[in-house]
Amino acid sequence: MRKRKLSRGAAVVGGGLTKLGLFKDRNCKDFFAEAFVEMADSIDKGFNPRDIDAIYVGNYSNDFFVNQSHWGPIIADLLGHVPKPVTRTEGACASSALAFREGVLAIASGLYDIVLVGGFEQMSRRTTEEVAEGLAMASSPYEVAAGFTFPGVFGTMATAYFAKYGADREALFNVTIKSHNNAPLNPKAQFPMTIRDFMNARIEKCRKKGEPVPEWRDEKDFLRDPIVNPPVAWPMHLFDCCPISDGASCLLLVAEDIAKNFTDDPIYLAGMGQGSSYSFHAKKNLTSYEATRYAAKEAFEMSGLTSKDIQFSEVHDCFSIAEIVHMEDLGFFKPGEGYKAVAGGLTRLDGSIPINTSGGLKTKGHPVGATGVAQLCEVWLQLRGQAGKRQVQNSNLRVGAAHNLGGTGGTCTFTILERR
Amino acid sequence: MRKRKLSRGAAVVGGGLTKLGLFKDRNCKDFFAEAFVEMADSIDKGFNPRDIDAIYVGNYSNDFFVNQSHWGPIIADLLGHVPKPVTRTEGACASSALAFREGVLAIASGLYDIVLVGGFEQMSRRTTEEVAEGLAMASSPYEVAAGFTFPGVFGTMATAYFAKYGADREALFNVTIKSHNNAPLNPKAQFPMTIRDFMNARIEKCRKKGEPVPEWRDEKDFLRDPIVNPPVAWPMHLFDCCPISDGASCLLLVAEDIAKNFTDDPIYLAGMGQGSSYSFHAKKNLTSYEATRYAAKEAFEMSGLTSKDIQFSEVHDCFSIAEIVHMEDLGFFKPGEGYKAVAGGLTRLDGSIPINTSGGLKTKGHPVGATGVAQLCEVWLQLRGQAGKRQVQNSNLRVGAAHNLGGTGGTCTFTILERR
Repeated sequence: MRKRKLSRGAAVVGGGLTKLGLFKDRNCKDFFAEAFVEMADSIDKGFNPRDIDAIYVGNYSNDFFVNQSHWGPIIADLLGHVPKPVTRTEGACASSALAFREGVLAIASGLYDIVLVGGFEQMSRRTTEEVAEGLAMASSPYEVAAGFTFPGVFGTMATAYFAKYGADREALFNVTIKSHNNAPLNPKAQFPMTIRDFMNARIEKCRKKGEPVPEWRDEKDFLRDPIVNPPVAWPMHLFDCCPISDGASCLLLVAEDIAKNFTDDPIYLAGMGQGSSYSFHAKKNLTSYEATRYAAKEAFEMSGLTSKDIQFSEVHDCFSIAEIVHMEDLGFFKPGEGYKAVAGGLTRLDGSIPINTSGGLKTKGHPVGATGVAQLCEVWLQLRGQAGKRQVQNSNLRVGAAHNLGGTGGTCTFTILERR
Repeated sequence: MRKRKLSRGAAVVGGGLTKLGLFKDRNCKDFFAEAFVEMADSIDKGFNPRDIDAIYVGNYSNDFFVNQSHWGPIIADLLGHVPKPVTRTEGACASSALAFREGVLAIASGLYDIVLVGGFEQMSRRTTEEVAEGLAMASSPYEVAAGFTFPGVFGTMATAYFAKYGADREALFNVTIKSHNNAPLNPKAQFPMTIRDFMNARIEKCRKKGEPVPEWRDEKDFLRDPIVNPPVAWPMHLFDCCPISDGASCLLLVAEDIAKNFTDDPIYLAGMGQGSSYSFHAKKNLTSYEATRYAAKEAFEMSGLTSKDIQFSEVHDCFSIAEIVHMEDLGFFKPGEGYKAVAGGLTRLDGSIPINTSGGLKTKGHPVGATGVAQLCEVWLQLRGQAGKRQVQNSNLRVGAAHNLGGTGGTCTFTILERR
């Protein structure tokens, strides 16, 4: 097989992300406007929105969530982009990672120089039960027919992981505690609280109500309590599952050769990959994602880098077990070693490879169509040294990555950005 | 503005299209398999499906129509393509024209050499009322809020056209009669009947039932009868509206430089363009599509061709008036002259610029996600001289085109193919 190379490189010169949360009274196109304005403000040397050649926007299912499809032209109108082209991409929770990818290809093709990529989703207008139904449409038809909801699929994966490597729920607690420790440092996070914050809030509530105050020894003891952390699909409990969220994200992508017109500090695409897989029953290995491995292989080949070169990464953590398994598939840790690395603090903000510095989907929020580009926003901010209180402390921070998963693994992407 | 050029050209080396119609008892992934098999068989020198680097598939809303989203991986599994990438594009009824476009860009980018592009939709599992609801989601929110259904929007456009240019319903009859004349020549057509066939069938039915036999003088007289051609949204009547359909389409796209490995007669991409527009109320001109004009401008610029070079074209005729207005926007005829050209027979199979040789959406069918690539299949067949009984009789047939519209004009594409 020939080595896959782009004819022309691309760089990120601006990014924007809304505050994530539940905003059912807002119109979801407003989210995109908010992210766009932040993105425009972030471009050091400024830019004229009229110079945008094309837009790619990821959205999972506004058809289902807000009864309005064909959002491309709505976004184009919102941004004064009409009559220029806008294309929607869909790959379930990886929808906007695909938008990013198509934006890169459009630039590499020679057709366009300046491309806006982004994503959005408004999930809060549906009930929780309806959201579960809407998301279930993104898993394989065989999974749905077997009654396999998303928590069920990931619960099964966790059970398999536990059995294979001797781990237990403590492995999941460690992921959750680590992610929540980053959350208060991210002003965009839906839940900007540590697990200790949740614990103290609960204790305070009991005191105020005059109820007996629970005696939790530590965060893990708190997470073990089935009252505060009830089972969803064993061993997935409430604190193992990311929330339902609304929000939007965007990035401005430009051709490598003109990037310095926008900023003295562009962040370049080093490599990107995309893979597909099918139903859980077709998995050869229950504790691995074939699509993630393929995406990583493509991205590493394109970049000439290896997993050892990745200094930090966003990793799709729709459920706590997903973060562990994906880290292993991406080569950050050997199979069966991921959970030990988390326990050892290696993935903390001050660890050897910080994972989900943003707080991850679990704490930052997961408006599915927005997530892929939201992850890349975080990588871009970190590489620019602009991640505020959650900035990775490394004076030589050069290479970061984002891994995005769609459905129960049907679509996976891995994207490596670098500062040169 | 710099001239937009692709770094690398692309060619079509194979195509497939299912018989279109209503097949509610089939699973819609079967349609894609059927189109794929026909495409594979059409490749003169054969090919190995394992050599496909990536897939782009257009689908409007399987979320709504069959309660299953995230179809990319389902298609990938079906074709043995896992774990390689598959991406869904959505632009309402132009969804698969966008898939074609992204396939071209992926090849032009240097990343891939062989890309499968296609589209599909299964609309027949919903009632007609539900389909109307599902399609309405593709128009602008302002149109829906005003009670503007699709026939309403196009009815308003026809009314404006009539008022501006002095045309009347006869202009629409001419389009319908012309398209239906091509239909029996297309074995894939959902309604392979001429208007005269419909008329004779109705007469026969009356005779058999012993009812009085209507005395229609000709096809136009038949179409004027409100019993057989009732109003839908004036002046749009039943025979002005394309049907609800199921089906799938696909094409194999390869890099220009390797096209001869697949066939001695590749059909090359000459130019492509894509435009966007918004709500009907924002139109500066009710009898023109800004997005179509922009798409045509891009495609002509890329190809170095003009509208005079287009020897035949598929033109998006979701409603009869749409064909007339689009032909004018594409420069085939001057504004206000399109309906006269149809009346004069210029767009017939033996006219100076045959339009919708396939029979168009009106007679061939319109499974929305499949349509864009289905149109390009027709252009490819015609340029190869393989369109059977509907083959355009021109020994120097070299340049054909396809125009696809999404929603009420929100997304438009124009693609020019050529034989070299």
